[in-house]
Amino acid sequence: MPISPLAPKHVPDLPPIEGVRLATAAAGIRYQGRTDVLLAVFDKGTAAAGVLTRSKCPSAPVEWCRAKLGAGRARALVVNSGNANAFTGKTGRDAVKFTADLAAKAARCKPGEVFLASTGVIGEPLKATAFDAVMETLVADAAPDRWLDAAKAIMTTDTFPKVATATAEIGGVTVTINGIAKGSGMIAPDMATMLAFVFTDAAVAAPALQALLSRATVDTFNAVTVDGDTSTSDTLLVFATGAAAARGAPKIDRATDRRLAGFRSALDSVLADLAEQIARDGEGARKLVEVIVEGAVSKRSARRIAMSIANSPLVKTAVGGEDANWGRVVMAVGKAGEPADRDQLAIWFGDIRVAHKGARDPAYDEAVVSALMKKPEIRVKVDIGLGRGRDRVLTCDLTHGYIDINGSYRS
Amino acid sequence: MPISPLAPKHVPDLPPIEGVRLATAAAGIRYQGRTDVLLAVFDKGTAAAGVLTRSKCPSAPVEWCRAKLGAGRARALVVNSGNANAFTGKTGRDAVKFTADLAAKAARCKPGEVFLASTGVIGEPLKATAFDAVMETLVADAAPDRWLDAAKAIMTTDTFPKVATATAEIGGVTVTINGIAKGSGMIAPDMATMLAFVFTDAAVAAPALQALLSRATVDTFNAVTVDGDTSTSDTLLVFATGAAAARGAPKIDRATDRRLAGFRSALDSVLADLAEQIARDGEGARKLVEVIVEGAVSKRSARRIAMSIANSPLVKTAVGGEDANWGRVVMAVGKAGEPADRDQLAIWFGDIRVAHKGARDPAYDEAVVSALMKKPEIRVKVDIGLGRGRDRVLTCDLTHGYIDINGSYRS
Repeated sequence: MPISPLAPKHVPDLPPIEGVRLATAAAGIRYQGRTDVLLAVFDKGTAAAGVLTRSKCPSAPVEWCRAKLGAGRARALVVNSGNANAFTGKTGRDAVKFTADLAAKAARCKPGEVFLASTGVIGEPLKATAFDAVMETLVADAAPDRWLDAAKAIMTTDTFPKVATATAEIGGVTVTINGIAKGSGMIAPDMATMLAFVFTDAAVAAPALQALLSRATVDTFNAVTVDGDTSTSDTLLVFATGAAAARGAPKIDRATDRRLAGFRSALDSVLADLAEQIARDGEGARKLVEVIVEGAVSKRSARRIAMSIANSPLVKTAVGGEDANWGRVVMAVGKAGEPADRDQLAIWFGDIRVAHKGARDPAYDEAVVSALMKKPEIRVKVDIGLGRGRDRVLTCDLTHGYIDINGSYRS
Repeated sequence: MPISPLAPKHVPDLPPIEGVRLATAAAGIRYQGRTDVLLAVFDKGTAAAGVLTRSKCPSAPVEWCRAKLGAGRARALVVNSGNANAFTGKTGRDAVKFTADLAAKAARCKPGEVFLASTGVIGEPLKATAFDAVMETLVADAAPDRWLDAAKAIMTTDTFPKVATATAEIGGVTVTINGIAKGSGMIAPDMATMLAFVFTDAAVAAPALQALLSRATVDTFNAVTVDGDTSTSDTLLVFATGAAAARGAPKIDRATDRRLAGFRSALDSVLADLAEQIARDGEGARKLVEVIVEGAVSKRSARRIAMSIANSPLVKTAVGGEDANWGRVVMAVGKAGEPADRDQLAIWFGDIRVAHKGARDPAYDEAVVSALMKKPEIRVKVDIGLGRGRDRVLTCDLTHGYIDINGSYRS
């Protein structure tokens, strides 16, 4: 699979995070000749927070994480690619328990301090015994500087590894946030999942971390769609080792603490960066599409309208065909079911207004818009004209590549 | 565009309907060398009922029809292809008024007794003056035996004309129901619209006709999806001339009248037939897909789950690839947001159960399922295992053909 033409030009070097060590291995779960297991081990005192799929058919590791987030303590994270361990019944729950026990023994912690995520085929039993052969070595090998390796081990149909980093000051002490993610569709060719893991040395208690994460997710990961198909396995976890406390960083218990302002914005930027990379690696994507809705009756209404546009196969195929087909944008606004007044609508492609007051803008020049549509990044903006609700989501075009990737047989 | 491989093998001859006369013409609205206007004229006393798009951005003719359905009296129907007269502002409303006045003058009725529908490009002003040249001739030429011509005049990206017919007895007198439809996506390559028109000589008052139609639409036209994109122009109108009364058929005022039992079922069958033909002519369709959901907590819940499956690009591309990818069906059930218990789910492709009790059915043979997936008609059945709610929807696969049709430039 060639690398997405929308891949970031620059891949940052991720610095070590105090209290986090990483290792990868090839356990042969499905793929040959590549790594497919990631282990992260955390120092004592690491807080965990997470956001998990809302699917009514979640994978076994999602259910495991959901149960363990209550305590919010983490000492290890085990992620595998190649098999999602989703829709695998009791076998799946057994595999999760087996893996957590194995990692806990090797990392000398409790099974409840081990977080798990799996991505790959749905419905195939995960042979967790494969981890048996590699777990001790993973723990022994774990080192602070393996970020790109970590991002590569969790890829499925991704065409490039996804990493992001930022720093912030808390109480005058610099802390670092690193993140890795995978995902090439909400669900890939029967590979399931968006997975993202974020690591920091900040000392933020689990409930505060959870509040920050939940808020930050709304306009980052939850504002990205490739095909509208929500995975059984979507998992976003954040681990805060607190190691920066040894350097004088304050320990923070409440998400509303003003000293978190910089950290909050750094966390936002890491999540936004990773989420955008997922849209850039959407299956078959040739164009990154930013959909902005303004003038809706509320932000929630703007989000629904934006998602209706971003998930419309007709809008997405039009962008793929480099056609500024604003009639389809009208259709997608109309079908969203949200308050809209046709005769107030205005629509822009890039900076060019193509529709105004419920009809074609007589001033727009099709040739200029056509030239704009040839660019790799396309912005579609709609003004509903009713209120002050605004939202923004990212998506990609729908191309022959998507059909090729998803229309091929599983084996 | 080659004819869909799913087109019906047999096209029925539609008999005349007493009180209905038809004519078509080439007005050059957008297409060259083909008809693009249909006129139907009705005898006095014809009742009308209709179901129109729920889009918040409806076309001008949809708004016109909505306003006229209150009175429920029809003397003429004018339909054009090539231009949807949608998102055309005041120009669009003027065009509608102009056309209704023109037809009323030619057919010697009131403008409020003229129904209108348009399908084609969104956002382009409709030059209604084009009707000026053909209207008098249309009225003069109208004849009872032009059903296939009528179905052809309203096509846009359709690959075959869609007609259906049935008879029923009311009070011992045979009445006939004829229907025509067009639509190849909820919206076609920036051609908008599903349009369907049904005609009968039965003597059924407008409110009763409306009640019958609204009920019949639920499991026919509203249970079909090609791409989940609701048109600005969807229009389904029924006209009952009452001419059968002269042959002794009773005049019926209430939808609950028991003498309507046979008529109701004949109307259902005509709508179901036309709706299935629309799925069979879905843009790029190579497979007709029937999605059945059983065991949901209610019919409404079953409908939402069935639509989540039928609209999933991942399910549709898998069917296109002849892959019995039941993991994606699990995903679509999970994302529907309706009550579901993963560990109670069972899934069938055709008669073969592939998943049971929340895991792969150990008994199923991939080779047998693969052979089944090569057929042109695929049935996917899901048992949610929670209640007695059941529903059925029709869709088609998502193929390169869809991308080709919708990814090309408008001009």
